[in-house]
Amino acid sequence: YFDLKKYVIAPYDRRYRLWQTFLVVLVVYSAWASPFELAFREMSIGSMLIADLVVDAFFAFDIILTFFVAYLDKSTYFLVDDHKKIAIRYVKHLFFPMDLASTLPFQQIYQLIAGKSHDRGEVFGFLNMLRLWRLRRVSELFSRLEKDIRVSYSVTRVCKLLCVTLFAVHFTGCVYFWLAFHHKSPGNTWIGKQVEDFKHRSVGSGYTYSMYWSIVTLTTVGYGDLHAENTTEKVFNIFYMLFNIGLTAYIIGNMTNLVVHSSVRTFAMRDAFNKILQYASKNGLPEGLKDQMLAHTQLKFKTAELQQEEVLQDLPKAIRAGIAQHLFHNVVEKTNLFKGVSDDFISQMVSDMKAEYYPSKVDIILQNEMPAYFYILVSGSVDVLILKNGSEQFLFKLDPGSMVGEIGVMFNIPQPYTVRSRRLSQLIRIDHHHFKQLVKPFNEDGKAIITNFTQF
Amino acid sequence: YFDLKKYVIAPYDRRYRLWQTFLVVLVVYSAWASPFELAFREMSIGSMLIADLVVDAFFAFDIILTFFVAYLDKSTYFLVDDHKKIAIRYVKHLFFPMDLASTLPFQQIYQLIAGKSHDRGEVFGFLNMLRLWRLRRVSELFSRLEKDIRVSYSVTRVCKLLCVTLFAVHFTGCVYFWLAFHHKSPGNTWIGKQVEDFKHRSVGSGYTYSMYWSIVTLTTVGYGDLHAENTTEKVFNIFYMLFNIGLTAYIIGNMTNLVVHSSVRTFAMRDAFNKILQYASKNGLPEGLKDQMLAHTQLKFKTAELQQEEVLQDLPKAIRAGIAQHLFHNVVEKTNLFKGVSDDFISQMVSDMKAEYYPSKVDIILQNEMPAYFYILVSGSVDVLILKNGSEQFLFKLDPGSMVGEIGVMFNIPQPYTVRSRRLSQLIRIDHHHFKQLVKPFNEDGKAIITNFTQF
Amino acid sequence: YFDLKKYVIAPYDRRYRLWQTFLVVLVVYSAWASPFELAFREMSIGSMLIADLVVDAFFAFDIILTFFVAYLDKSTYFLVDDHKKIAIRYVKHLFFPMDLASTLPFQQIYQLIAGKSHDRGEVFGFLNMLRLWRLRRVSELFSRLEKDIRVSYSVTRVCKLLCVTLFAVHFTGCVYFWLAFHHKSPGNTWIGKQVEDFKHRSVGSGYTYSMYWSIVTLTTVGYGDLHAENTTEKVFNIFYMLFNIGLTAYIIGNMTNLVVHSSVRTFAMRDAFNKILQYASKNGLPEGLKDQMLAHTQLKFKTAELQQEEVLQDLPKAIRAGIAQHLFHNVVEKTNLFKGVSDDFISQMVSDMKAEYYPSKVDIILQNEMPAYFYILVSGSVDVLILKNGSEQFLFKLDPGSMVGEIGVMFNIPQPYTVRSRRLSQLIRIDHHHFKQLVKPFNEDGKAIITNFTQF
Amino acid sequence: YFDLKKYVIAPYDRRYRLWQTFLVVLVVYSAWASPFELAFREMSIGSMLIADLVVDAFFAFDIILTFFVAYLDKSTYFLVDDHKKIAIRYVKHLFFPMDLASTLPFQQIYQLIAGKSHDRGEVFGFLNMLRLWRLRRVSELFSRLEKDIRVSYSVTRVCKLLCVTLFAVHFTGCVYFWLAFHHKSPGNTWIGKQVEDFKHRSVGSGYTYSMYWSIVTLTTVGYGDLHAENTTEKVFNIFYMLFNIGLTAYIIGNMTNLVVHSSVRTFAMRDAFNKILQYASKNGLPEGLKDQMLAHTQLKFKTAELQQEEVLQDLPKAIRAGIAQHLFHNVVEKTNLFKGVSDDFISQMVSDMKAEYYPSKVDIILQNEMPAYFYILVSGSVDVLILKNGSEQFLFKLDPGSMVGEIGVMFNIPQPYTVRSRRLSQLIRIDHHHFKQLVKPFNEDGKAIITNFTQF
Repeated sequence: YFDLKKYVIAPYDRRYRLWQTFLVVLVVYSAWASPFELAFREMSIGSMLIADLVVDAFFAFDIILTFFVAYLDKSTYFLVDDHKKIAIRYVKHLFFPMDLASTLPFQQIYQLIAGKSHDRGEVFGFLNMLRLWRLRRVSELFSRLEKDIRVSYSVTRVCKLLCVTLFAVHFTGCVYFWLAFHHKSPGNTWIGKQVEDFKHRSVGSGYTYSMYWSIVTLTTVGYGDLHAENTTEKVFNIFYMLFNIGLTAYIIGNMTNLVVHSSVRTFAMRDAFNKILQYASKNGLPEGLKDQMLAHTQLKFKTAELQQEEVLQDLPKAIRAGIAQHLFHNVVEKTNLFKGVSDDFISQMVSDMKAEYYPSKVDIILQNEMPAYFYILVSGSVDVLILKNGSEQFLFKLDPGSMVGEIGVMFNIPQPYTVRSRRLSQLIRIDHHHFKQLVKPFNEDGKAIITNFTQF
Repeated sequence: YFDLKKYVIAPYDRRYRLWQTFLVVLVVYSAWASPFELAFREMSIGSMLIADLVVDAFFAFDIILTFFVAYLDKSTYFLVDDHKKIAIRYVKHLFFPMDLASTLPFQQIYQLIAGKSHDRGEVFGFLNMLRLWRLRRVSELFSRLEKDIRVSYSVTRVCKLLCVTLFAVHFTGCVYFWLAFHHKSPGNTWIGKQVEDFKHRSVGSGYTYSMYWSIVTLTTVGYGDLHAENTTEKVFNIFYMLFNIGLTAYIIGNMTNLVVHSSVRTFAMRDAFNKILQYASKNGLPEGLKDQMLAHTQLKFKTAELQQEEVLQDLPKAIRAGIAQHLFHNVVEKTNLFKGVSDDFISQMVSDMKAEYYPSKVDIILQNEMPAYFYILVSGSVDVLILKNGSEQFLFKLDPGSMVGEIGVMFNIPQPYTVRSRRLSQLIRIDHHHFKQLVKPFNEDGKAIITNFTQF
Repeated sequence: YFDLKKYVIAPYDRRYRLWQTFLVVLVVYSAWASPFELAFREMSIGSMLIADLVVDAFFAFDIILTFFVAYLDKSTYFLVDDHKKIAIRYVKHLFFPMDLASTLPFQQIYQLIAGKSHDRGEVFGFLNMLRLWRLRRVSELFSRLEKDIRVSYSVTRVCKLLCVTLFAVHFTGCVYFWLAFHHKSPGNTWIGKQVEDFKHRSVGSGYTYSMYWSIVTLTTVGYGDLHAENTTEKVFNIFYMLFNIGLTAYIIGNMTNLVVHSSVRTFAMRDAFNKILQYASKNGLPEGLKDQMLAHTQLKFKTAELQQEEVLQDLPKAIRAGIAQHLFHNVVEKTNLFKGVSDDFISQMVSDMKAEYYPSKVDIILQNEMPAYFYILVSGSVDVLILKNGSEQFLFKLDPGSMVGEIGVMFNIPQPYTVRSRRLSQLIRIDHHHFKQLVKPFNEDGKAIITNFTQF
Repeated sequence: YFDLKKYVIAPYDRRYRLWQTFLVVLVVYSAWASPFELAFREMSIGSMLIADLVVDAFFAFDIILTFFVAYLDKSTYFLVDDHKKIAIRYVKHLFFPMDLASTLPFQQIYQLIAGKSHDRGEVFGFLNMLRLWRLRRVSELFSRLEKDIRVSYSVTRVCKLLCVTLFAVHFTGCVYFWLAFHHKSPGNTWIGKQVEDFKHRSVGSGYTYSMYWSIVTLTTVGYGDLHAENTTEKVFNIFYMLFNIGLTAYIIGNMTNLVVHSSVRTFAMRDAFNKILQYASKNGLPEGLKDQMLAHTQLKFKTAELQQEEVLQDLPKAIRAGIAQHLFHNVVEKTNLFKGVSDDFISQMVSDMKAEYYPSKVDIILQNEMPAYFYILVSGSVDVLILKNGSEQFLFKLDPGSMVGEIGVMFNIPQPYTVRSRRLSQLIRIDHHHFKQLVKPFNEDGKAIITNFTQF
């Protein structure tokens, strides 16, 4: 997008984005591994150590990389690509020390310094928890996805909640197992009461028990086959349950939000229909009128007419004009009335145009009404009818590109015909007065239009 | 509705709709039977086989039928009745292979080919699960009902949630029973711990246990009399509980949505009243005024006046005019002032009319106010009063069809009378200026009106 | 309210209302007693029979009374007091037979006919359940209270939910006890497992157990000390739990609705403030301006200005004029400019007036601005300042009843002074053009005003 | 703020506020200590007595202090500093007797009067519960914080819910322990069943058990390891569970409210984008137009343009003018066209100005459109282009302080150039007609502008 200094990457760079997404995958591993290693460290869990070191290496690389990534200044909206400024911003922030602390392999460093000694294993297990700091990347990813219209908001939100829930279940399960493992009397623990030799069972079995207990508590099922036995477990359990109230409420709140938002359109449609039915029954309107009202409203929701108007309203004039040119210029140019008229005039006239949909069998113009508008038929077809001696007579049918109502407007007489849509039709409505004002400065074009009108 | 090719059915055809609804009933059976047969297959469940085959036959027929049903093109809104196009669309889609797979009686086919051999029963139990694909029909039915104004949205939604819940309970119960039945040590299963000989008990008893456990878990009651014993059950239970969080949140979200929507009107009414009470107390208004304000607002909510205006606003001019003709043409025609006036003029005038409700004892016109409107009484009755020497004197009472305020308007003098509603009255309000402009092009009618006015 | 036939009571009659409320109290007794008697019938519960008969007598009297209560015709909004019509409407309805069936003391009638025989006790226990039909009265009471602005909506709603919950708990508890009592092997029931001789314990103990089990299940606590033992109990429990999902969701939905509604105002206020802070910081506005903006907005929320305007907007012109007269007539009359002016003119002018609040230290008029409005001070006080040689000089202070800005308006010159509020002040703003137009028809008054203006 | 009588403190006094906040801390202690002392009184809990007396002393001092604190009259908005009135208001209120009752150390007074006698310990334990009256201060603090924009609403609300939950858990836990402690057969209590000698265990252990049971019930986990044993416990438990339904629903309701409110902005943005995408695809707009539409909308959300307009709309004219002066006076003064123009005129003109943001590459003026506005560039830069022989030619670039479109406006000819934004630019738009009307009364300035225009 912009010219950046050499060796400086834009934060929007596609490859950098991919790298970041890759890191999120590693974060998921870290988030899973850190509590797991703490809990099952002493139960021969195989060499996850190498995987950990590789993951750490990736994050170490990202720390270095960050010094070469430009950032967006919040007040000026400019990308800052000055190495010094980038470095100062990163180091000053809380991010740098935390990133560093969550990446350094403390245990290995300690072993290098102090020689082989596994005694402090517990301490490093806790230090590994610092890697959970990396979870902020997941949180950032989700908040970016929530603003990305290519991704469904509901899906993003549900995924986020699922991740939070799974992490809470996993983390607490691991801590709970750790508590049992390090209790002085294994028989007096939640798991020891059921499985006396749990320390010598497989990791898989222990992990299943932990997860099972954790989720049974989180969902408040609470079968009771596993429950806190000693005081430490009770205290821990109390805090977990307190947290769960909040989490459950948060999940329900989010779900409610999604449900409410997803049903807004349905409610709007149903309410509109109900109002019409109520109105019709209250005023004793005949079936024909009621059906016309319903058909019209149904069409409006199908074509999202209201939304279209909103979209246009909020746009600046220039864009709006551009859209109108694109949509109506060709149609207008080809109508008989505007043949040979200058491009300038048509552009001018077209800029304000809006198309309306009419369902089938709807009166667009009523015979004898005062002429206020004339119409250009964009799609569909309309019938022209005349009321003679009290009965309607069909005169002719019009196809796209025709105009209706222009006779009344030009001669300023009551509309001589009734115009009724044959099937779903789209028409451009042109205001009488507005049109006259528009023609004024274009003398030549005005004459051309009148000539066209008389010939036609 | 439309002319379709021979042997092609419209998707809106009443009989086709009925057929579809009938199929949904069969789907309900399939959804219940598939998991049930899987779980209780080895416990002599009688010959559900025949029922299954009959149901399959119906669905096989529907597959064939689908090749003869026209479809609606999403972009042109036209019904496509070309056999080739219908076939291509259906076969290309995921629907056709899935429909087929969920209909073929694999077990019977296998037996035909391989001869009698019941060894692979388990496999066919799982293949039968493909029939659950048919559930999409239920989902489609519900999404159609949600848009159907003849059916209550709340009822539809609650039914849908109930169906989802029941299916979840049934499905999980069956799977859980299957897990227990196929575990190597029956005593170490959730049901075996309580009922050692569960394999030899009745199907009904087993099914009750399964459903009971399933719903105790879903509702998070978790008595604990039945709970996961072995690792497989624990893992399955974990996923079920995770799913339940989502389902519960979804149910609550939907219920909240319905409750919120159903109370919108009540809140609107209460808020309106509260605002009036607050306003009246803050400004120290006398009781009389406060009561008038309350009565007016109450009436507005009763007659849904605001809603009526909304309904009209969104309709195209032609329909609006049609409604006004229906409601007011007769009333206006019969008033003294418009006797003998041309039908055209009345139609013209009536098109823009709107009726307003006034509660009893409300001043419609105040003596000495500048004349801006005159009124035609549609229903109810009004009193005409005059203020003389500081006290109000009753002049006369007017009944439907009368006009009020026209003297002030015609002579352009301050209104000579106060007009007050006697009881709930409906009046048409006609704008002074608008009326004058309307009369202009109708010379004859203008004269007739003046004649009427002077005579009357 | 209206003249009714003799021996016909209006449904709005105060005494009839009291009677209805008294009946609701009896309904509460019935709702409690019917399931209770069914469950504990065989455990010497003392003679509730007499109480039941007395209650039945009251309801029997109400059935008779209903034939003498007028009803409101839904379409004409008239009270119908014709005996025949009232009777037909009541008898045709479902209400009459149900009312009758829920009132007849079947057991006593049966005993009268068939002689003493207690064998069919169970049947009559179920027949007594018909009395629960009376609960419709409670439901009607709540739906009336929800629309009554004298009663808090939240309180009504919470009470309703509490009633529903308590009834569900009580009813299910009783049914559950009945199931245990009538099971063939008392030891194999939910209560028998814990209390073997439960049939010979006190009614209070049995009732406590029932209620305890019922609510432990409803709230999904599910300790597990009591749980379904036999199949019948399991099946019943399944349905109760299904019902509980719905009830819980309904309770949460209602609570959410109340919480959301109660916080609307707070959110509106906080959002308004936040927007101002954001705007000020984004545009780098000086502190002084920011504080003025905040003070103004705070005031607006305190005085509920926006709400006041809404209230007025929705009222018909006549009421609005009445309010304005009440609020401003006295103030305007006493200002110097309008001394000796006719009452008609003042009434006319006052009808459109609106008062605005200004916080302290806010500029109402800026020196040199084009005169568009002048103001009458209703309450508070304002300073008049002049800007000379770049510094503001204090000229004088004005008290309620004074006018400001009228000089600029009369001579049509830029405002010669700055006017600033001293403390919270209320001013009437009068539009320049509107005022001129108003004066036109009142020649005498116009002259008086000009005389006043020159003198003053 | 105001001059108060000697020895009278304003309620807004900073030091008084601090004192109040300090009292809230003491309230938290009281709320914790009162139920705790009741439950564990007989289990040597050390001398909390002294802490209690000290806290009581502080509250006693506050009672005295309250007689010296002015209060705000609700109707006049004035501070009342009259000692007599303050005293009457406080004593009349419920507050004074309750404050007094919750502060008097009844036990110590009784001991002074009746001599040493610890027999009535229980009674004083209950009397101590009166101290919970002090909780109203916490409630007041929260309702003040909810209106304070310096504090996050979500945080306040979550804290409040946490406090309520913790208090409920603590209070019920203590009462439950009290029930067990005073039951006649300790073995038949919820805790005695598990820990027979619970009366002789440590206070910590007993408290943990109580809290654990309490929260297991509140969250409806209900493991079942602890549950009600005797009737008293069952009855108490029933009421606690009933209360919990309400509390849980309230927590969920609040969380939902916060979630819904926090996502309003995101939904608004996503909906706007979706509407544009839908509109573009439905009308087959080219990519270029679609991107312009998206860029514009994104910008609008970034700059919160809509919000800014809302903020301004709701402010009184004088403040609005002040803001406009601050933002635009300098810019306008420096443009060529307004050099040497009087300060009055510029002030006048500036008061109504509003700035608009344009994203990069957007047409601000289209060649040949009728001149309705001219623009002053505040920030960013724009290109001036001309369409010759069907291709656009770049003429020149304009920097902040320049004007565009003024030629068309001055000569009233179609705009001779297209003006397109180069990058994010802010422009002031000035309406053609409005400007002309503004110039009228300023003859000198009008001439100066024309001179500037011709020179420039």
